[in-house]
Amino acid sequence: MTDQTKELIDKLQVKPGVKVKLKDGDARGERLFRDEPETRAETAALAEEINALQDRLYAERQRALLVILQGMDTSGKDGTVRDVFNATGSIGVFVHAFGRPSEMELAHDYLWRVHAVCPRRGTIGIFNRSHYEDVLVPKVHKLLSKSDIGKRYDQINDFERMLTENGTVVLKFMLHISRAEQAQRLQERLDDPRKRWKFNPGDLEDRKLWDEFEDAYETMLEKCSTTVAPWYVIPADRKWVRNGAIARIVKATLEEMDPQYPKPAWKPTDFSVV
Amino acid sequence: MTDQTKELIDKLQVKPGVKVKLKDGDARGERLFRDEPETRAETAALAEEINALQDRLYAERQRALLVILQGMDTSGKDGTVRDVFNATGSIGVFVHAFGRPSEMELAHDYLWRVHAVCPRRGTIGIFNRSHYEDVLVPKVHKLLSKSDIGKRYDQINDFERMLTENGTVVLKFMLHISRAEQAQRLQERLDDPRKRWKFNPGDLEDRKLWDEFEDAYETMLEKCSTTVAPWYVIPADRKWVRNGAIARIVKATLEEMDPQYPKPAWKPTDFSVV
Repeated sequence: MTDQTKELIDKLQVKPGVKVKLKDGDARGERLFRDEPETRAETAALAEEINALQDRLYAERQRALLVILQGMDTSGKDGTVRDVFNATGSIGVFVHAFGRPSEMELAHDYLWRVHAVCPRRGTIGIFNRSHYEDVLVPKVHKLLSKSDIGKRYDQINDFERMLTENGTVVLKFMLHISRAEQAQRLQERLDDPRKRWKFNPGDLEDRKLWDEFEDAYETMLEKCSTTVAPWYVIPADRKWVRNGAIARIVKATLEEMDPQYPKPAWKPTDFSVV
Repeated sequence: MTDQTKELIDKLQVKPGVKVKLKDGDARGERLFRDEPETRAETAALAEEINALQDRLYAERQRALLVILQGMDTSGKDGTVRDVFNATGSIGVFVHAFGRPSEMELAHDYLWRVHAVCPRRGTIGIFNRSHYEDVLVPKVHKLLSKSDIGKRYDQINDFERMLTENGTVVLKFMLHISRAEQAQRLQERLDDPRKRWKFNPGDLEDRKLWDEFEDAYETMLEKCSTTVAPWYVIPADRKWVRNGAIARIVKATLEEMDPQYPKPAWKPTDFSVV
């Protein structure tokens, strides 16, 4: 891992039990990267390196990587998948977007549908939203008691520790945008006919609850950033900063996992293809 | 709950952290019930009461009951399902037998396939074997380090606590048979043409490891009997004793859950069926 990346991780990783103030936070990521063209080029190169590392992960077939993306509407969850993971593609990356739970999902504990789609060994799983919706939404809309939400933080930490102890590395990115940036992006969705399908009037209702959501995110970061599955707060007002930071962290994580091509039990020279 | 049942539970429930000695244990269940015909009649009546309670559980659709059956080969896991749950039947009871894991199951953490078939709200799920195989077998066959097995006990306790906190009551029955009784039942499987299909030469290999399995069961009982999901050691050398004990505990548990038919939002007298 380069010193640059170490420094970046140190800046963005939430230390266990520490309260992050998102409102005062730097959603633009000032001074995180030198300049935009250089960072864009670096991200493209990192995406290729991630692809190469994924090939080794797949061949080794012992471990998995789970990338959790959370953030307010328009914070760029889909964009992150495209810009950081498209070089790898659907062959090794499985994306799951969690929407409103179905009847069958509601008939089970909230982790049931999440566990079901956790990545199998050899693959990278990406969650677009996740079980964290099951603490964020109940807190904002007061659907559960404080004590029940408190239990869920513990349940989630236990669940993620179980995953890590059984071979899955967990990376959690909270895409941090400012209220002003969200206004601009929502307006774009209204104005641009090709983006209009992404607009959901309900997003404006959630926008009214900006402070409540920010508060719920802060508590989630404080309670659920653990040493085995830390949260990263990613400045996401500028897409190239967001991509650059995530690409660096994903690449460094895979590099640290250091997946190995399995050694064949036979000698290639013992065979001749006729 | 009757005093009889309270006493039975107190006798059979494993207190958290307490080491049970299975070898010295009473696999016949002496003095647990008065006599055989009376107990058989009681079990049949309890099975009907379990069916009535299941109907309320199904109508309420808020909670689930998970019954885990573990025990050496021939200990009577299938027989328990038949004798205690057949009055309820497949309409409200879902049985899952866990065999050798598939490739896809092995590509995930060992709890993945278990979580996937946990009972949905309103139903009773029965596990014939379970995630406990994933601590028993690795301990006996030394497939995992002591520390990794230790982590699994914690992971299992966390997992079961999560289930209970989200609406599933967990009952765990260890069917305790003696080595002599197993010999007789295995011999029957060899002698009786209608039972021969149940015989598996591998069972004799496991029988050779009786002491090692007994030891692994004892550790499992000690580590994983929790206040929220306790283990019961059920004397299983005599089937009517086994059935009587389990029927009483299941019925008492459902009764304590006290599921309620939901109150309709409308008045039956407001409608006329024409």
